[in-house]
Amino acid sequence: MSNRRAASRVPEMSWFAWGDPSRAEPLSDSVRALIAEALGAELRDLPPVAESEVRLPPSALGGEARTAITAALGGDAGRLRTDDAARLRRSAGKSTPDLLRMRAGAVSEAPDAVLLPAGHDQVEAVLRACSEQGVAVVPFGGGTSVVGGVAPLRGRFSAVVALDLRELDALVSLDEESRTAVLQAGLRAPEAEELLAERGYTLGHLPQSYEYATIGGFAATRSSGQASAGYGRFDDMVVALKAATPRGTLEAGRAPSSAAGPDLRQLLLGSEGVFGVITEVTVRVRPIPRARHDEAWAFPSFAEGAAALRALAQSELRPTTARLSDETETFVNAALSGKQAAPGCLVVVGFDGEAGEVEARRAATAAALTEAGGSALGSEPVADWRHSRFHAPYLRDTLLSAGILAETLETAASWSGLLPLYRAVGSAVSGALEGPEGKAVVLCHVSHTYPEGASLYFTVVTAAGAAPAARWERAKRAAGDAIAAAGGTITHHHAVGTDHRPWMPAEIGPLGAEALRAVKSALDPAGILNPGKLIPEAE
Amino acid sequence: MSNRRAASRVPEMSWFAWGDPSRAEPLSDSVRALIAEALGAELRDLPPVAESEVRLPPSALGGEARTAITAALGGDAGRLRTDDAARLRRSAGKSTPDLLRMRAGAVSEAPDAVLLPAGHDQVEAVLRACSEQGVAVVPFGGGTSVVGGVAPLRGRFSAVVALDLRELDALVSLDEESRTAVLQAGLRAPEAEELLAERGYTLGHLPQSYEYATIGGFAATRSSGQASAGYGRFDDMVVALKAATPRGTLEAGRAPSSAAGPDLRQLLLGSEGVFGVITEVTVRVRPIPRARHDEAWAFPSFAEGAAALRALAQSELRPTTARLSDETETFVNAALSGKQAAPGCLVVVGFDGEAGEVEARRAATAAALTEAGGSALGSEPVADWRHSRFHAPYLRDTLLSAGILAETLETAASWSGLLPLYRAVGSAVSGALEGPEGKAVVLCHVSHTYPEGASLYFTVVTAAGAAPAARWERAKRAAGDAIAAAGGTITHHHAVGTDHRPWMPAEIGPLGAEALRAVKSALDPAGILNPGKLIPEAE
Repeated sequence: MSNRRAASRVPEMSWFAWGDPSRAEPLSDSVRALIAEALGAELRDLPPVAESEVRLPPSALGGEARTAITAALGGDAGRLRTDDAARLRRSAGKSTPDLLRMRAGAVSEAPDAVLLPAGHDQVEAVLRACSEQGVAVVPFGGGTSVVGGVAPLRGRFSAVVALDLRELDALVSLDEESRTAVLQAGLRAPEAEELLAERGYTLGHLPQSYEYATIGGFAATRSSGQASAGYGRFDDMVVALKAATPRGTLEAGRAPSSAAGPDLRQLLLGSEGVFGVITEVTVRVRPIPRARHDEAWAFPSFAEGAAALRALAQSELRPTTARLSDETETFVNAALSGKQAAPGCLVVVGFDGEAGEVEARRAATAAALTEAGGSALGSEPVADWRHSRFHAPYLRDTLLSAGILAETLETAASWSGLLPLYRAVGSAVSGALEGPEGKAVVLCHVSHTYPEGASLYFTVVTAAGAAPAARWERAKRAAGDAIAAAGGTITHHHAVGTDHRPWMPAEIGPLGAEALRAVKSALDPAGILNPGKLIPEAE
Repeated sequence: MSNRRAASRVPEMSWFAWGDPSRAEPLSDSVRALIAEALGAELRDLPPVAESEVRLPPSALGGEARTAITAALGGDAGRLRTDDAARLRRSAGKSTPDLLRMRAGAVSEAPDAVLLPAGHDQVEAVLRACSEQGVAVVPFGGGTSVVGGVAPLRGRFSAVVALDLRELDALVSLDEESRTAVLQAGLRAPEAEELLAERGYTLGHLPQSYEYATIGGFAATRSSGQASAGYGRFDDMVVALKAATPRGTLEAGRAPSSAAGPDLRQLLLGSEGVFGVITEVTVRVRPIPRARHDEAWAFPSFAEGAAALRALAQSELRPTTARLSDETETFVNAALSGKQAAPGCLVVVGFDGEAGEVEARRAATAAALTEAGGSALGSEPVADWRHSRFHAPYLRDTLLSAGILAETLETAASWSGLLPLYRAVGSAVSGALEGPEGKAVVLCHVSHTYPEGASLYFTVVTAAGAAPAARWERAKRAAGDAIAAAGGTITHHHAVGTDHRPWMPAEIGPLGAEALRAVKSALDPAGILNPGKLIPEAE
């Protein structure tokens, strides 16, 4: 096992905002005034309280449980932390409702302890101990959930602990012939890429949360990245998984594909820690591409751009990256870069690979996009996107400080259902937010395409108003109901957590929910794992 | 719903052999003598008994159960058959042990009735009735299982029925924009292709069992076809599923991909009827390719051929078909076509698509194969393979009549594990069969490749000997143990049924088995569905 730590650790995530707050830029008064005008609203600042003002509830972890858990952690008391700084930083994910609560210092729920196991065996021992002691466990990776996935819910238990996997950070092995790597779950994406790059390989998995998210989190939430058209969604890249459960270890995946019954990998993928804690993932890797080319195209409308992406997805021409912004997003993104947008909608395509092959794919794709009615814009607009693509969460905090909500939500559907879904969500959200507190600007892009359909990713910008959390909840509920009614999935790559759980009965039906509950009872009979997440309650 | 029947129904499957026995050709005395010499064995004929000599056990279906099931079938008594002809034809699949039993007229187990439901609702009603009445149910599609998947096992119940889905044979809908089709489970592959071809589309799914296998069977067993490199395995092509269970209907799949928890499609795929009966599958379709090109290549050795296929699988160059025969299979296949084999190993690549694009892929693939040490052989050797590719099961019956076992088994592993697995299985099978009754000739090919590994498909030819079933069982056990020890999967595309069940504990571990049992208890609490198949018994 190559268990040296990656050299460049990302800085610790802020407790009240995304990432490293020193990277956030303030909003100029003139831009703020322009936004206020566009939203038709008064804005009022929403500054964060100081950390020293935050009062956490006292730790409810009893002495006996503490002793048992410490023993499971090899008797190392340093692996069980109950200080406020550690607890505060595992009290919430990074959804807008999370940020609003944290900023306000309204931290009414916090884990009673933070556990830092050294490896798989300690994770398994902790789960056994917590099962015996009746302590709820919330697995914690990068803490980047935007759906309440790391909320420290205790369910019917008197205590809850955050199980932080950061010390499971090794590249366990690399099989160059099979092009697979075994990665521990707590590795953050940049660390995993650094360890792989030393050997000439890459995962190519680049979600918005890239800088902080972990390998285990990618697997547990079915993450999808900006280059998933070429490299595949994370769930597509997983060849095998190892998970610790309160009843022991579950390993899935003996071959690339198998007909030996249901695919148990697909039961652990997306399981969000309710069945067990994924500790190790065997994932497909690729040689670092030696060539890359990006280019932008303009299409007259969202519908025509979507038809062009569909033609690509249904051909043998799969770019590594393929995205389409609607008219509003195209305009706003150009404005954010200080540029004039081309009229219509922006399409970005990117190609990773070998030099000659990239050029061949580029040329064939260009021909297809031209035939579909697109106009080539060259590479420059993509450089802006590449440059700022991990910056959006910082911008969200900047806007929030200025009293502006800028939150995202996403879905996916078949191509034939995509435009109706797009219109339904857009008007549901706009309708829910329009009123005395102003209106909403709704941006959308398609960032993941498949032969049979695509994702839709919405960004909603609106004034925070007098009760920002309730205001956002109203929009979110309207969007979720519209998605369910239009037959889309309630989440294409953000996962379920607490926030999408109300729509799970519609998503998987009563028998689907019973199947999940049955698996949970088998693997986690005490029900300590992530109570209140993912699986709908029995009726 | 386009529920007209496909015009060209395949002829009824023989009760003691594969397919339509009129298509089987006899073995000449001279070829038989050559085989006997190669196997170092005396051969003795194994002719089938006449159907009139077969005595089935009387139907054990009680009057009350019969009444309840007939009611579930809409009160149509013609949908519940208990005549010997119907029962005999659902008494076994098509493995060599099945064929040996049937030929000998040793049909000690038969379904007590054959049910012919008219649609999903009747399937669901039947399952409810059988659940209440304590009658085991074996879903029956094409009857092509080679792993005991349709064996009429009754478990702890006093009666068992075969639930034949042949009347669920409609193309329900075709979404041309999303390129998906909703197909009923009982459609045989040629019928499905015919219905799709009328609209210009194809599934491109071509397993050896193509002529008889059904859409539902493909899904329930995770079938993989000869063009799966290009079109994907059947489980990859499934966008949504509908299944009837004793507790109601379960539908899975609202979008191409989703992060809304575990993928329940992947729980039904490969479930072999133990959780429910798949009645409808939404599957990806493609326009019928306008161009096709095949070509053959020679490689000096199996290892070099495998390295070449690996290079293709790990590149962007995915042929629609890619297969590699080892030295023995290359020699034997050429001999069967009355030709002299090129020395070494045969590789076949095929490309479906648009004319210009097929040529570009062919040229790039040819360059890669040349670089990997291959020599081009042109298209002619592939024509032989295409011509005879659905004929192998017929040849198996011909050989069996002449006292020669010719059975297949298959597995898959990572590329780094593939050659060790190949050698381990080959020597385990040869060792198990070598002795006073002669020896075995073991052929192997790679027919499915992935970036991270590939399948191995073995054909074992040996004299039937004095106790053919026991002789084959010895070889099968040796192969299964060798596969489990070498880390391969016990089945890449034949499924589990009864025959691979002994290796399921090694395949999925005790917790994996418990997860499957838990799902089964939730969906089929009475346990009527396919007892004795797939899921290992609790210890």
